[in-house]
Order: sequence, then structure tokens, then C-alpha cells
Amino acid sequence: MAEHPAFDRLRARLFDVVDLHGVSYLLKWDQATYMPPGGAVARARQTALLKTLAHERFVDAEVGRLLEAAEREVEGLPADAFEAAYVRVARRDFERAVATPAAFTRRFFAHTAATYQAWTEARPADDWGRMVPLLEETLELSHALSGYEGPGAAHPADPLIARSDFGMTVATLQPLFATLREALVPLVRAASAVPPPDDAFLRHPSSVAAQVAWARARVAAFGYDLERGRVDPTAHPFAIEFSVDDVRITIRSRADDLRETLFTTFHESGHGMYHQGLDPRFEGTPLADGASAGVHESQSRLWENVVGRSLGFWRGAYPSLRTAFSEALDDVPVDAFVNAINAVRPSPIRTAADELTYNLHVIVRFELELALLEGRLAVRDLAEAWRAAYAEVLGLEVPNDRDGVLQDVHWFSREIGGAFQGYTIGNVLSVQFYEAACRAHPDIPTEIEAGRYATLYRWTREHVHRHGRTYDPVDLIERAAGGPLDVGPYLRYLKAKFAPDA
Amino acid sequence: MAEHPAFDRLRARLFDVVDLHGVSYLLKWDQATYMPPGGAVARARQTALLKTLAHERFVDAEVGRLLEAAEREVEGLPADAFEAAYVRVARRDFERAVATPAAFTRRFFAHTAATYQAWTEARPADDWGRMVPLLEETLELSHALSGYEGPGAAHPADPLIARSDFGMTVATLQPLFATLREALVPLVRAASAVPPPDDAFLRHPSSVAAQVAWARARVAAFGYDLERGRVDPTAHPFAIEFSVDDVRITIRSRADDLRETLFTTFHESGHGMYHQGLDPRFEGTPLADGASAGVHESQSRLWENVVGRSLGFWRGAYPSLRTAFSEALDDVPVDAFVNAINAVRPSPIRTAADELTYNLHVIVRFELELALLEGRLAVRDLAEAWRAAYAEVLGLEVPNDRDGVLQDVHWFSREIGGAFQGYTIGNVLSVQFYEAACRAHPDIPTEIEAGRYATLYRWTREHVHRHGRTYDPVDLIERAAGGPLDVGPYLRYLKAKFAPDA
Repeated sequence: MAEHPAFDRLRARLFDVVDLHGVSYLLKWDQATYMPPGGAVARARQTALLKTLAHERFVDAEVGRLLEAAEREVEGLPADAFEAAYVRVARRDFERAVATPAAFTRRFFAHTAATYQAWTEARPADDWGRMVPLLEETLELSHALSGYEGPGAAHPADPLIARSDFGMTVATLQPLFATLREALVPLVRAASAVPPPDDAFLRHPSSVAAQVAWARARVAAFGYDLERGRVDPTAHPFAIEFSVDDVRITIRSRADDLRETLFTTFHESGHGMYHQGLDPRFEGTPLADGASAGVHESQSRLWENVVGRSLGFWRGAYPSLRTAFSEALDDVPVDAFVNAINAVRPSPIRTAADELTYNLHVIVRFELELALLEGRLAVRDLAEAWRAAYAEVLGLEVPNDRDGVLQDVHWFSREIGGAFQGYTIGNVLSVQFYEAACRAHPDIPTEIEAGRYATLYRWTREHVHRHGRTYDPVDLIERAAGGPLDVGPYLRYLKAKFAPDA
Repeated sequence: MAEHPAFDRLRARLFDVVDLHGVSYLLKWDQATYMPPGGAVARARQTALLKTLAHERFVDAEVGRLLEAAEREVEGLPADAFEAAYVRVARRDFERAVATPAAFTRRFFAHTAATYQAWTEARPADDWGRMVPLLEETLELSHALSGYEGPGAAHPADPLIARSDFGMTVATLQPLFATLREALVPLVRAASAVPPPDDAFLRHPSSVAAQVAWARARVAAFGYDLERGRVDPTAHPFAIEFSVDDVRITIRSRADDLRETLFTTFHESGHGMYHQGLDPRFEGTPLADGASAGVHESQSRLWENVVGRSLGFWRGAYPSLRTAFSEALDDVPVDAFVNAINAVRPSPIRTAADELTYNLHVIVRFELELALLEGRLAVRDLAEAWRAAYAEVLGLEVPNDRDGVLQDVHWFSREIGGAFQGYTIGNVLSVQFYEAACRAHPDIPTEIEAGRYATLYRWTREHVHRHGRTYDPVDLIERAAGGPLDVGPYLRYLKAKFAPDA
């Protein structure tokens, strides 16, 4: 006799929905790695078919009935029991999915697809004007979406932020970002005043195959399981999962810049380890994902930056790198190498930013999103507002719109609002989590210097990965970090690293 | 106003069915090329889900109603008009799909999946005994399948042969195979009596990447479009299509045997060009496939053997190969190279067979299938019957069951009957088609010697590829070859090549 018959039927039904999404991710992975150009038209059509099938099967009235019955069955279970967490998260996803009328969803997807297509041409042509009317409609649709998903929200951005960072709001994030901005601007100014270190050796040409081999072996040592994953080249790196046991990462390499392979691989391995580390029981369930965009990003930033750009890590790892790339690195001591990979150089490009300036790029975008949604800024004035913000916050003149307002795909492929905050939440959390791990295991820094990462990896798996979406992000952060989201540790970390004498 | 409203609705509906199959092929391609071991469990589940969705959408009662209405709409159209051919082929597929009860289909798939799994362990263990009871059930299920799909057939194999070679029957194939066998046995005996040529240079180690680069460039020159396809490594090569514009081939390489890369690439490019050459209007329709297994195989054999193992072809291609693999080939003249790749050496393994012995492997299997289905042979006696047939037909002692009755996956992964005849039909047709092309364009042999393949490629595209399943195989053969399937030209080709002085 099944203890929870409705729950079991719900679970069997949603298993197919999760699997259809998993298949659509394989289509995406293939498109970004190996698909020949001719495959594009059918790929778009087949992806849309899978998404439609998954959506239809999810918003079905029978799912609603099963959810109600399952909610009664799990009453009284602890909130973090598998069945209780499953039903709670499935209900949240279901309400969101049925909140938007089908006609709106079709219009929204058609519009964002057309906008993305236009952006792929407008960006290289530096043609901001072409995007203005499209983005005006995006803004209108974003308001509508916000209204459907979070009627009566305190701020129109709140329901959009909740899509990726559930539980975070403008009211909680704005003060936090203001504190960060206030502290970062003078730090960046001071660091930029120092002449940059010599880093020509990073651009010494080397074999991409050798770079990838070195980085693969290193992330395997971190804990990324190559029996349940793989590393492939792409243009815009990402991690992606087809099941709990097939979680792949894609990376970008340049023969003449060692950093590309190293840090895209470290970064994506953090995302990959998160999904590989889920409780295997979550396969085919709505719990099989990260707690939020911010928590996901904390795992990538932990390995990319907190570990991967630290002197301690390279004390252990550098001899092997130097052997593999002796032509470039033979004369370069470890301190010079670590200085070079941490050089602070304000740049107009977010993805090329160093640790210190990175969050200023995010804050500029976050504030512009709010201004647009609040009606304080018109879309037609966005490019100019972008330039003004970069001048003010980063002290930079933006050379053109291509490397200005047109640089990120986000606004041109989805709603406006909620697209960027996760990056900075992730940076902040990466240090909170690392410090919590070190409080529990004070030997972690020494182990990392010795090239051993297992204790840190196991801590992240135990306190973050395996829970998936069992806990709401704020609860998971509280449990894992020992306190709420807090910029204090992150700012102390940045000051210690970039302004040790200040 | 739509001219054929029911047809248009049918077409829209079946587009999704074809796309779901296309997606399932991507899953298969990935599994055979890049999937990490951990992905296997979810991959089997997700593939089954897609197949189930495609099947459900196809056998739906509404498809039956639309088919009837569409049949009325296309009455009076020429048989090879797009709409008429579409409806005829869709009707045939539909009747086949609804003929078998769902419960039988489930039992059949569960049984063949379990049998395949057992075979993957039994073959390396040389454990024929384990497979006997499984294959006994397969035989029983094959009879049932034959009864469902072709009630009242003259021979129980006929409906099974029709699954891949529609229009061919035991009655038409048996005399043809008897003629072949009678002519081939003495040819093989004579060729085996000659000491084999020196071919050690073919096993000189070389870079697999360089092998693949050379073979890719050559099949691109044949006509395989790399903008709408790609070449990837796998264990058991195949060609596969996700759409008309994304048709990939997979190949097998050995550093110490140049032949593997060359001939698996040539072979699969023939299959790939067939699908790439379909009328683009066939995208998403049941017409988007080869006319039959035999006609498909004719295209692969044309490029692999008739062109790819000919002296004329290598007169043009060898200088480039010799430059790329000078260490191995510097001292080897073109005649010696062509002799070496055409050495006749009876072997127990079908896939390692030369052109002369290959069809004897097929004929042995075809005859054993008939004996099993007619009840003249019991499954428990099959291994012994296999040994006897190899001794009689190829003069070989089969060393064990692993390289005997267990060698091919076919009987252990699908029904018994109809699995092998397509290979020999393809060999026979490859020469009929080549001769028809040369009758129309007598310069083809000269062009091939000069490294130009466009005339031959265009002939195959015009007379075979673009039609897809528009014509029944027998009609296509008649139109393209100028006559029915006929072993005469093929036997003359083999005699001229392997026994020129006889």
C-alpha cells in the first residue's frame, strides 16, 4: 500500500515534465557546442515543441487536483521532508505557470525570440536605435508578467527577482547594493591608480588542448565528476544538466590568453558540482535544481575566485601549471602570476571584469532595471543613462553601444528585471560560505595549499548541493552560512586582498 | 482558402511526430559519441519517453480520420505528387503502427531491451547458452509481429522484410541470393588461394586526427555538406538525421589501421548524402527517409566500394593521401595500395569482410533466419547451424560463438527476420546505379580519376536522394537503374575486379 497515493501519482507525472526539460537542455547544449549551422532552424522548432509539451503536461488540471490531494497527504510532515518540500516547490512552480494566460506566454516568447534575433544583428552593427522599440515592448511585457506572477507586489521588480532569487526583494537588496557600491568605488579608484603588473606572460600562445587538459584535471580534483559530466568548448560558457548523473560544463579558450580556459572551467565546474551533488532521490523532481540564481552563482564564484584566484591555491597548483606551460611561465614566480590574474583594470565589459569592479557592473544594471520599471527612465534614454552610470561608477567612458548597453544578452532575450542581482548575491555568498566552511574545518586553507580540495568540496555538498530546492534560499543561506545574506565578510575579503595596507 | 484542408491538418500534426523522432535521434547520437557513462540511465528513460509521445500522437484516432479525409482530397493526383505520395506513405506507416496491440508492443520492447542487455554480457563471455531461451521468445514474438503486420503473407519473413525493404519478399530474394552464392563461392575460393598482398603499410601508426581530416575533406568533395552535417568518432559507426539540414555521420578510427577511418567515413557519407539530398519540402513528413534499407545501403556502398576501393579513384586521390601519410606510404605505389585495400581474406567477421566475401556472410544469415521462421531449425541448434554454414559457404572454422552466432547485434535487439537482406540488396544496387549514372554521363570514370565527383553525386541526388520515399523501392529502382534489381551487373563487376583473367 502506498502511503501517499496522490503524491506518488503527481511524482510520476512530473517526472516526464522534468525529463522533457532535460531533453530540451541537450538540444541547447548541442546547439552551443557541436551543431552544424544548418541545424538551427529545426533546432528552434524542436526546442519549442519540447517546451510546449512540458508546459502542457505541467499546467494540466489533473496536476492541480493531484497537488491538492498531495498537500493533504503531506500535512504534518516536517517542512524539509522530501514529500513536503516536493509538494511546496511544485505548488510554487504550478501557480507561477498557471498565472500567465497562454496567449500572453505565446506573445512573450514570440517577442523575446524576435528581439534576440534582432540583437544578434544590432550588436555587431552598434545599432541601438533598432532595439529601442523592441525593448519598449519588452518593458511593457515585463510589467504585465510582474502583474500576473506577483499581483500587489511592493515593487514591480519583486516578482521578476523572485523568478530566480526567490525571497529577495528590492527592499532587501537595495541597501545591500548601496553599501557595496559605497565601499567599492574608492577601492577601485585606489587600485586603478597603481600601475598594472606585468602580465604579458598570460598572453603567451599555448596549446588550447593542453590548457583544457590541465583545467579538466584540476576541476576533477575539486570534485567535478567526469564520469557524470564532460567539458566542451563553446562561445558563451555555461553548465547544464540532462539528469543528476549527466551534468556538463562548457568553456571558452584562447590560445593567447591562459585565463580564459582556467577561469571559465573553474567557474562552470562550481555550477556543475552543485547539480552533481544533488540528493539522487531528486532525479525527475522539481527539487532537482539550485536553491536560487544567487546560491548557484556562489558555488561558481567559490571555485573561480575565492579558491581559484587566491595565492594559497596557486602555491599548491602553480608548479604543475608552470611545468605544463613552461615556455610562458618558466621565469614567472607564483606571486607574480597571482598578481597578474588579479590585476584591477576597469573595463566597459562585465564578463572581462576583475573581482573588484565586477559588482559595480552588476549594480549599474540593477539600478537601471529599477529605474525603467519605476518609470523614472525611458527606454529611449537607456543608452545615455548607461554611459552616465559608467562614467560615475567606474570612471569610464563607454566607447560605443556595442560595448555599452548592447553588451549583455539578458535584456534582449527575456524580461527586464531580475536578470542581474544573482551575480552579486553569488559573490557575496561565496565568501560567507567559504568562511563558514573554514570555521567548521580550519584546515581547509592549508589543505588547499597542498592541492587537496576534498574537505571544502564535502562541506559545500553537505550544506548546499544535496538540498537542491528543499529549503527556500533565505533558509538555506541561514543554515549554511550561519546567518543571513551579509556583505560584511565579502567586503573584508576584498579589502584584505586588494587594499591590504589601507 | 486551403486546397487540401484535411491534408494540411494531417501534415501539421505529423510534423511534431517526425520532430519527436528527430529529437530522439539526437539523444542516440549523443549517447554514441560524447555522453558520459553516468548519463545512461536517464538517457534510456528519456528516449523511451520521446518514442512513447511520438507513437501516441501518431496512432491517435484523429490521425486516422484526417488520413481518410486527406485520401479523398488527393484522389486524382498523380501518384508521385507530393500530397499523394505523402498520404500513401503515411497510410502505410499508420496501418503498421495500429496493427500491433499496445500490450504486444510493450512486451516486445521490454523483451528486446532485456535481450540486448543480456547479449552485451553474453557475447564477451562467449555464453551462447544464456541467449537460447531469450532468442526462443524473440522467435515467438517475431512470428506474432509478422502475423499482426502481414496477415496471410506467403512467408512469415515477408512482413518482416517489408519493414525495411518494402516490396521485397522471400520469393523474389531467394533465387537472387542463390545465384549470388553460386557465383561467389568459387570466386572466393580462387581469390583465397592466391597469397595475400603485403599490406603492413596500412597498419603503420598515424595520427587519428590527420586521418579524420583527410577523410572529412574527401567526403566533402564527394558532396557531403559539412555545413549541414559533421563527423564524430564512435564505436559502431552510423549516419543519423535530426532534420533535413542536420545529418551527421559517426566513424571509427584506429591509429594502426588507416582503413578504418577511410572506409567508415566513405560509407557513412553515402548514407548522410542521401538524407541531405532529400527535397527540402519533405522536412517533417513521412517522405523524409530513404526508399528502403537496400536503397540506403546502395548509396553507402557506392562511395565506399564502387568508388572508394577502385584504382581509378585512387589514381586521383592517392597523391594527397601519400603526402599526408608519407611515413607509411612513401614507398608504396598506387597499385600496391589498391591491391592491399582489396585483399580477399575469408574471416568469420562480417564487418571485417572484403567485397567478395561480404555477401556470403549476409546470405548465411538470411538463410538461417528463414530456417528459424519456417521451423526447420530450432533456436537451440542455431550456433551449430552457424558453424556448419560457415564451413560450407566460406570454408572457415568459426573459432567460438562470440565471433560466430553472437557476433551481430541484430537478432539480439530486434525481431528475427528482415535484418540482413538490405546489405546485399545495397551491394547489388550500388553497381546498377553506378552503371546507370555512367550510361548517362560516360565521363564519370575520367572525372573520378581527376578527383571530380560532382557529376556522379548529382546523378544520385537527382535519381535517388531527392525522392525520399515518394516512390516504392521497386519503382525507384526501375526508374533510376533502368530495370529491376538484378545481380548480373554486380557479378560482372566483382569478376572483373577480383578474377580478371578467369
